[in-house]
Amino acid sequence: MKVDVALVHHPVVNRIGETIGSAVTNLDLHDIARAGRTYGVNTYWVVTPFKEQQELAAQIVGHWQNGHGATVNPDRQNALSIIRIRASIEEAIAEATTNYGERPCVLATCAKRQSNTRSFAAIRAMIGAEKPVMLLFGTAWGLSPDVMEMVDGVLPPLQGPTPFNHLSVRSAASIMLDRLLGRPDDWEEEQN
Amino acid sequence: MKVDVALVHHPVVNRIGETIGSAVTNLDLHDIARAGRTYGVNTYWVVTPFKEQQELAAQIVGHWQNGHGATVNPDRQNALSIIRIRASIEEAIAEATTNYGERPCVLATCAKRQSNTRSFAAIRAMIGAEKPVMLLFGTAWGLSPDVMEMVDGVLPPLQGPTPFNHLSVRSAASIMLDRLLGRPDDWEEEQN
Repeated sequence: MKVDVALVHHPVVNRIGETIGSAVTNLDLHDIARAGRTYGVNTYWVVTPFKEQQELAAQIVGHWQNGHGATVNPDRQNALSIIRIRASIEEAIAEATTNYGERPCVLATCAKRQSNTRSFAAIRAMIGAEKPVMLLFGTAWGLSPDVMEMVDGVLPPLQGPTPFNHLSVRSAASIMLDRLLGRPDDWEEEQN
Repeated sequence: MKVDVALVHHPVVNRIGETIGSAVTNLDLHDIARAGRTYGVNTYWVVTPFKEQQELAAQIVGHWQNGHGATVNPDRQNALSIIRIRASIEEAIAEATTNYGERPCVLATCAKRQSNTRSFAAIRAMIGAEKPVMLLFGTAWGLSPDVMEMVDGVLPPLQGPTPFNHLSVRSAASIMLDRLLGRPDDWEEEQN
């Protein structure tokens, strides 16, 4: 299985659609690392071009990797070990290409259906065939139009039985990983 | 659809299995309210017996319900409107019983499979038949043994393709709601 996740802090859009850079948050690192580790993600790329933000993220990860956190909570150390902090999506893709020996299929997530939306079944098949895949998640109000244009495809939007779909990026990433990588026997389960 | 969620801050267990009360956190309120609202949850019960914690939770919710937050982000106002803060699980169950005119089936979540684990299919069928259901999620290291004994059943543990399964309660709640309430057509989708 060759699946990576990237959490993008730039370029993303704000409430009124302007391209911005967002701040790294502690729980985005923890929650998505823990879900990533649970579902077999190889690398969780944290993308921010801002030096101070890179340092903040590195400090948080360091606390749980080498600091006091590593001693008190080895599970958290384990989860955060998949994080790599990089300045741009391009840099993450280049490094993933080296890691896998092949450029990953880069898939964006979006709360609205796009013309290049792939089905979950198609993406699961790709993952099953050991094709490398990188899933991009946008912070703030989502990935910028530039990113949406450079990707190889888009995941279907998550939707419940209501018209409301304002999930946090932590929830969206967790659900996407479960849909793409959750064990089938978890789903089928004994009918006793 | 008659589905409620309860986030339990007491009684839960700590790292070494002692029963404790945990602190309310801002993002547990937001993330689970947003996922709950997306998936059609009627009430998100935030359970804590501690007065100061109840007040803290009420302040956070109030900011987004009536304060500045309500003006700048009506979607967040909408999401947080499903929150009710109560002192105990029993109090939440009693009030849900009044709301639905029938006692809900109370289901715990647990990272380990229990003898009274129900299948996702069985719970989906119950929800489809308009039977009221309350899903209990534990903060800290999970629901206390007392809670596990008083419930009507337990949800299957979430498991990815790895032995690691240390999801945050925010991730676990989001994934459980998607598994139980995600729209089937989201899943089946066009094969084109």
